[in-house]
Amino acid sequence: MALTVVGSIAFDAVKTPFGERERMLGGAAVHFSLAASFFTEVRPVGPVGDDFGTEQFELLEARGIATSDVERVPGGQSFFWRGHYDFDLNVAHTDDTQLGVFGEFEPKLSDAAQAADTLFLANIQPDLQRQVRAQCGAAGFSGLDSMNLWIEIAKDSLLAAIAEVDCLVVNDAEIRMLTGESNLARAARAVMEMGPRAVVAKRGEYGAALFTEAGPDGGEQSFFALPGFPLEDVRDPTGAGDSFAGGFFGYLDGTGGDLDEANLRRAMGYGTVLASFNVEEFGTERVSRLQREEIDERFEALRRMTQFEALPASRG
Amino acid sequence: MALTVVGSIAFDAVKTPFGERERMLGGAAVHFSLAASFFTEVRPVGPVGDDFGTEQFELLEARGIATSDVERVPGGQSFFWRGHYDFDLNVAHTDDTQLGVFGEFEPKLSDAAQAADTLFLANIQPDLQRQVRAQCGAAGFSGLDSMNLWIEIAKDSLLAAIAEVDCLVVNDAEIRMLTGESNLARAARAVMEMGPRAVVAKRGEYGAALFTEAGPDGGEQSFFALPGFPLEDVRDPTGAGDSFAGGFFGYLDGTGGDLDEANLRRAMGYGTVLASFNVEEFGTERVSRLQREEIDERFEALRRMTQFEALPASRG
Repeated sequence: MALTVVGSIAFDAVKTPFGERERMLGGAAVHFSLAASFFTEVRPVGPVGDDFGTEQFELLEARGIATSDVERVPGGQSFFWRGHYDFDLNVAHTDDTQLGVFGEFEPKLSDAAQAADTLFLANIQPDLQRQVRAQCGAAGFSGLDSMNLWIEIAKDSLLAAIAEVDCLVVNDAEIRMLTGESNLARAARAVMEMGPRAVVAKRGEYGAALFTEAGPDGGEQSFFALPGFPLEDVRDPTGAGDSFAGGFFGYLDGTGGDLDEANLRRAMGYGTVLASFNVEEFGTERVSRLQREEIDERFEALRRMTQFEALPASRG
Repeated sequence: MALTVVGSIAFDAVKTPFGERERMLGGAAVHFSLAASFFTEVRPVGPVGDDFGTEQFELLEARGIATSDVERVPGGQSFFWRGHYDFDLNVAHTDDTQLGVFGEFEPKLSDAAQAADTLFLANIQPDLQRQVRAQCGAAGFSGLDSMNLWIEIAKDSLLAAIAEVDCLVVNDAEIRMLTGESNLARAARAVMEMGPRAVVAKRGEYGAALFTEAGPDGGEQSFFALPGFPLEDVRDPTGAGDSFAGGFFGYLDGTGGDLDEANLRRAMGYGTVLASFNVEEFGTERVSRLQREEIDERFEALRRMTQFEALPASRG
């Protein structure tokens, strides 16, 4: 199995109450790819500038990530984001965004990228997402992330893009905004009526919730939720959502695209675990040296933290 | 086993996008007692005015709630709260609060109330909480709720009250505010260093998290979390937190005060279920006609929505 992701490949400048970095590797496709690389073959697609050098390529390749669809544009500058977080790490404050080479991006995927079994369209302009989607006809499972900006300025394009994927993965506030429905369960149902058969609502430190069309209980709609993994040291939340998506889609692709409810729930677990490692340090620092055993250990800890049993009937 | 709760016994005026009520039975001790009444003997303590009539007493007594510690003050007015909710039902906007007879309240508990095995101090002025705590020396397990107001204007009293209980149950934002620590896991640990051996962080629609001093895994601190039960119809969130606490403490008291981790987790489940019924309709409307079978059914549904399994090792 193989996974293609399109999205920003970037440099980030980030300041949090726990430190700062002036220029580090970042971007949605980078965080996604690193997380997914523990489970499957992953291929990020996107443009970078001259400033994207050997060091950055090597960091990706050390995790087995295929970088031949990372397109280096001569004379260009890579996407750049500057942001900061205050006391409440759930809220990112954007101080600067420079699209650089992303402003002129016209996706032309290699044969290998087009042949992906699984496709993830990270948060970029929705028309670009649709262009990539159209080139990946073989993908049996596809997902899409977006943001409030596109709901505000390109809603029709975004709705068209959403209709073409199997799974929407966005923040819960964005699901509400997209559908104009304040109740999350209703909002998720409204999204599924647009096309996707699954909706993942990202909830920051509160974790993530999964809505699917029909569950093992035969109900109309199935619901599953996990809390964020509790951490005493959260240093930089940047990329948590992308790491979650990388763990989620990477695990699904790596297990042969098994989309039954039990496997989707495990994927939620791996997404949660990858997001938790991501936020422990700045940028890609923690995930780039992560070991598979650490992932499985934390997955099992998460499982223990969420399980409970009814009393036997004799006592109930 | 028997459970005493002290807190507001009130009339509420509430407006939400789904309707409004001009004057309905409410207050923390009322919502708590109704929820707890499905599991144990519960006795609310607090003052009401002349306006609190037969209809209100009958509603409580129909659920088997002992009302002899509800003190009727001649010539007085019951506690009154007016509030509204907009698109985001997580945020209550207070429009009016009239303390009424609560302004002069001096707790004098009956022998029966003092003999409780379990005690819950709902959100009232912390010196009042301490007076009640002092009168209930027999209680083997005690809990306390509070709010931002008391952290702001009576922090020392509140800290003293917290030191005297086993379990703090407050909103996660209040745990952060109380401790000055933005990281919830660290904040919960700081609370446990003040005295309590358990901390429940209420998270609105995101559910609730339980921190305990030492878990079954032998770790330093144990963590458990449940999402809010997903509902397509949420009409009035008022009293959700009190219903949660009523389900939680009621279940623990009803199962003989068994405080092991497995039973605490079940109690979290019942708290979640009672809160979910509470918000489906206005005020006490839904819970006052609830049946025990409905509770157990939703408890089991919640369990199914939160369980997941690792892949067998041969495939993992």
